[in-house]
Amino acid sequence: MTDRISKQLNFIKEIDKMKNVLRMTLVSESVRRENDAEHSWHLAMMALLLEEYAARPVDITHVLKMTLVHDLVEIYAGDTFAYDIQGNKDKEDRENKAAQKLFSQLPKDQENLIFSLWREFDDMKTDDSLFANALDRLQPFLSNVMTQGHTWMLGHVTKEKILWRMDPIRTATPALWPYLLDMVSEMEKKGYIPE
Amino acid sequence: MTDRISKQLNFIKEIDKMKNVLRMTLVSESVRRENDAEHSWHLAMMALLLEEYAARPVDITHVLKMTLVHDLVEIYAGDTFAYDIQGNKDKEDRENKAAQKLFSQLPKDQENLIFSLWREFDDMKTDDSLFANALDRLQPFLSNVMTQGHTWMLGHVTKEKILWRMDPIRTATPALWPYLLDMVSEMEKKGYIPE
Repeated sequence: MTDRISKQLNFIKEIDKMKNVLRMTLVSESVRRENDAEHSWHLAMMALLLEEYAARPVDITHVLKMTLVHDLVEIYAGDTFAYDIQGNKDKEDRENKAAQKLFSQLPKDQENLIFSLWREFDDMKTDDSLFANALDRLQPFLSNVMTQGHTWMLGHVTKEKILWRMDPIRTATPALWPYLLDMVSEMEKKGYIPE
Repeated sequence: MTDRISKQLNFIKEIDKMKNVLRMTLVSESVRRENDAEHSWHLAMMALLLEEYAARPVDITHVLKMTLVHDLVEIYAGDTFAYDIQGNKDKEDRENKAAQKLFSQLPKDQENLIFSLWREFDDMKTDDSLFANALDRLQPFLSNVMTQGHTWMLGHVTKEKILWRMDPIRTATPALWPYLLDMVSEMEKKGYIPE
């Protein structure tokens, strides 16, 4: 019991490091990069507010837990930019090692829980994970809308690549898709999407 | 329907500002102040991991939602340092106005939902909110443990004041209390708690 609580409290201290894992996206009204802790909170808020648009009914508790833990492995594996082809090649291997190293700091039952939530998110096979992944695409999309297409310009990400990357939104939250297309058109008009 | 989705997406963009609301606590391994988005994510993770220590059974879905939204009003009302007596005098009034201004940007049903989650958290009357509040005390406590008592030193917060502030942990998550007392003793020995 004693050991269990110590492990849990130490894990909670360890994951403070999420606040130092920087993503490519910028925070609005600021010139600094967003970190994984902020991103994960924003994603959980989106799940809370947009549940009604899931193509198929979801278990919101399960979805919330998934959004909270989905990027934890990046504490050791680092963030891989979505449009970075090279970085995405060894991503799986890096993240598997990180998951092993990080989650094993928890009591066994919770290690298994967090590991399975993380795997389910990444496998994108269940309704819950498809919904969570759609939001995980939408969150940085909205950041780009708020920051003049910052990462699109930076990574020379064309409209075609954006729409390909956002495709899970079209299938998992179809009601949101026309809104996304409108925003793409507007950003294109403003010159915030590279040719 | 159209209006509903626009409102929701605009609200999601608006709350990006949580990432610019700075708290007094520092982020570990960094010299910058923590923001509300990071704090809220960390708190939700703690709820996920420490549910078993709630004095009375909690509805984890409800608790997770409360932790995610409990500080949203600070987007307009700002963060009030826990040990700031003056600032805490008009806190309620400032936060009520902020809640009205922020939550009314949502569709009515969701405005009511977020408002009631926020009020429940602040009223500290239900088992769910007592558990969430205990964790909301523990999170900055652990930050202080990781940053040489940064805000305790800054605000001349004595051991007596810390224990008074942490009291909800003693009653709502009693199993964690001896661990907290141990950490207090250790921090005191190291000179990280003002006399």
